[in-house]
Amino acid sequence: MTQKTFPLSVERLEELARLYPTPFHLYDESAIRKNVRRLKDAFAWNPGFREYFAVKATPNPYLMKILKGQGFGMDCSSLPELLLCEKIGVTGESVMFTSNDTPAEEFAKAKEMEANINLDDISHIPFLEKACGLPELVCCRWNPGPLKGGNAIIGKPEEAKYGFTREQLVEGYRLLKEKGVKRFGIHTMVASNELNPQYFIDTAEILFDLMLEISRSVGIAFEFANIGGGIGIPYKPEQDAVDLERVGEGVRLSYDRHVAAGLAPFRLYTECGRMVTGPYGWLVARVRHIKRTYKTYVGLDACMANLMRPALYGAYHHISVPAKADRPADMLCDVTGSLCENNDKFAIDRRLPAVEPGDLLVIHDAGAHGHAMGFQYNGKLRSAELLLREDGSVVPIRRAETVEDYFATLDFEGLKTFQA
Amino acid sequence: MTQKTFPLSVERLEELARLYPTPFHLYDESAIRKNVRRLKDAFAWNPGFREYFAVKATPNPYLMKILKGQGFGMDCSSLPELLLCEKIGVTGESVMFTSNDTPAEEFAKAKEMEANINLDDISHIPFLEKACGLPELVCCRWNPGPLKGGNAIIGKPEEAKYGFTREQLVEGYRLLKEKGVKRFGIHTMVASNELNPQYFIDTAEILFDLMLEISRSVGIAFEFANIGGGIGIPYKPEQDAVDLERVGEGVRLSYDRHVAAGLAPFRLYTECGRMVTGPYGWLVARVRHIKRTYKTYVGLDACMANLMRPALYGAYHHISVPAKADRPADMLCDVTGSLCENNDKFAIDRRLPAVEPGDLLVIHDAGAHGHAMGFQYNGKLRSAELLLREDGSVVPIRRAETVEDYFATLDFEGLKTFQA
Repeated sequence: MTQKTFPLSVERLEELARLYPTPFHLYDESAIRKNVRRLKDAFAWNPGFREYFAVKATPNPYLMKILKGQGFGMDCSSLPELLLCEKIGVTGESVMFTSNDTPAEEFAKAKEMEANINLDDISHIPFLEKACGLPELVCCRWNPGPLKGGNAIIGKPEEAKYGFTREQLVEGYRLLKEKGVKRFGIHTMVASNELNPQYFIDTAEILFDLMLEISRSVGIAFEFANIGGGIGIPYKPEQDAVDLERVGEGVRLSYDRHVAAGLAPFRLYTECGRMVTGPYGWLVARVRHIKRTYKTYVGLDACMANLMRPALYGAYHHISVPAKADRPADMLCDVTGSLCENNDKFAIDRRLPAVEPGDLLVIHDAGAHGHAMGFQYNGKLRSAELLLREDGSVVPIRRAETVEDYFATLDFEGLKTFQA
Repeated sequence: MTQKTFPLSVERLEELARLYPTPFHLYDESAIRKNVRRLKDAFAWNPGFREYFAVKATPNPYLMKILKGQGFGMDCSSLPELLLCEKIGVTGESVMFTSNDTPAEEFAKAKEMEANINLDDISHIPFLEKACGLPELVCCRWNPGPLKGGNAIIGKPEEAKYGFTREQLVEGYRLLKEKGVKRFGIHTMVASNELNPQYFIDTAEILFDLMLEISRSVGIAFEFANIGGGIGIPYKPEQDAVDLERVGEGVRLSYDRHVAAGLAPFRLYTECGRMVTGPYGWLVARVRHIKRTYKTYVGLDACMANLMRPALYGAYHHISVPAKADRPADMLCDVTGSLCENNDKFAIDRRLPAVEPGDLLVIHDAGAHGHAMGFQYNGKLRSAELLLREDGSVVPIRRAETVEDYFATLDFEGLKTFQA
């Protein structure tokens, strides 16, 4: 069971929603910092351990700056994400560039930043070489294929677009070595939003097995192994968070066994996103309308533009009503947004305390893959992001979009003379 | 069977892709105009017939200006869409404001523009009255509930968030009449992307039945009936386009029967989006990588940010390779984008002619709900929109996004002094 909490009192929430128009995302700095320490502690046994935050989960440079202060690196997969890192002074090996179907200019930028470049495919070796020359350190991504079952979001690994096969990895590292690459990393990631801790231990085990095999057959030593992210969060109250200590300990046992068997010691990396910020961000929205037809609809001022997971994946997000937390949840309803799409619903057949227009609702676990996935479909604008600081103050860390942002790519001057 | 065509020669396409970096959306003005005439002709029997283009499908003011020139009104459901209409001089009853979960300020703007306001719920009558007073003309949206089966995208009408029940409609029009509203419209829409012509005829039939009943019981005359949109397009080559002439004729027979039975003559409105521009817009992308692991992946320079329907709905979009159209389709592949999401695929297990990096691919039927649904997830930027004019020239009608657009809502100055 996971207690679904919200860091502000009802009065403070009301005050905030008067200062900043709803909807907005609110992140809790203290809780994020505490969680960061938990992750670091779980892998403290590995002297070089580092988490590379998956920027795509929450590409906000203010949050990234906090994570940087905690020693996190950044995992990027596009040019704008690399540029965000530059803006907060994260460069060099503090950046992991894990991209697929990569354009030449993004490889060139990653190399210029001296980032760890994580190749997705064997054909990217000559492509990278041609684009900008091979760096001294190269990482390759392994797709274990039918060896390892995936999960619902990422699908079966053998049907996922990511990574090298085992045979390609052997050939790839051999080629890289021949071409003068001196330093090597390896990466795999086969799950997304997984809650079973054993999954991550098993993944590390098969990756370390492969490292031992490749080290011997190719004659290279790995500096690091990136065991990926994919650590889920308990979206549903009846779910439990992943026991990070258990994952850390299980990976340690596997690491020790492999080092004893001859694998050179290496730095362990992770690239979590969701579990770092997800549970510590909330989408705050206000009830705009209650509608009763064949069902009861609670219409919010937020919509898919603010949080797309329920519509895109049918994902569960817990919803609470802070001012009515002590009342029975006896209102069966769909919680909807205003987008002109019937799937614009945050919840279907959910029980809430009886709410009214004007009530503030809190949608939980919106701190990752929430604001980041927003679109402007139907002329909807993306909302602001606010940060609850450790000292209790709240500061804006991203402004809400305006109509001018929506119109930014249109030439209205040209439109005047456009003959229709 | 639908022949999947593309309006440019191979040479012209190559030339265009040198001038404008791929990916881009290309729209064909001639084909759109021809299609517009087909729709108007199908309903020409009704003197007041008007199509209100569903702006959300392709909210580009250049295309909207062309449609305006053909006599189309505009169907909007948000403030930015209303403002787009103002930009091209479409106001008054040329605007249909069909919104759900509507904020007060959007009702006020629609009223200020003297738009047709289409209410989604009976509670919106007092809400609208309080927000800005009731206008002279009001339309209400009917949700026929279990009377009428929906389809895959819109779901069962009784589970859709839209519209009034039959009982609420009767009560609603009575209330509107009491409150001094003088002019009335009615609307329903129960399908999305439907290809069966009989569906639209049946929808008109039940709507006209209801109009007759309400006219008599409430003692009002309807000026117009908006039978909605939802006319699908044949995404798959083996599908056929909706026979618009058959729909028009079927609706005419029903109209005539109802008028003979005592229903006052009225203007017929539609609010199509997809079928107006969908088949006449293409996403042009270039092959960046070919990857062979457990499957073969054709990696494009486009991604979900340019066209989300395959990832969001598992939707089929036809893909052609103009320069290799005469070669056998013997390459079984997944066609992917570069987003760091495994569902970023335009096609799964598709047969294409053997393609190579650099080849230009055309993704068909991307003229609606294509660019409009793009997001910036993973730092991906939305592409440009181009228009092939009737004289054969190609003009940009929207520029591609830049990194500056991606950063627009962030305060990098404040970030410098932000203590992390």
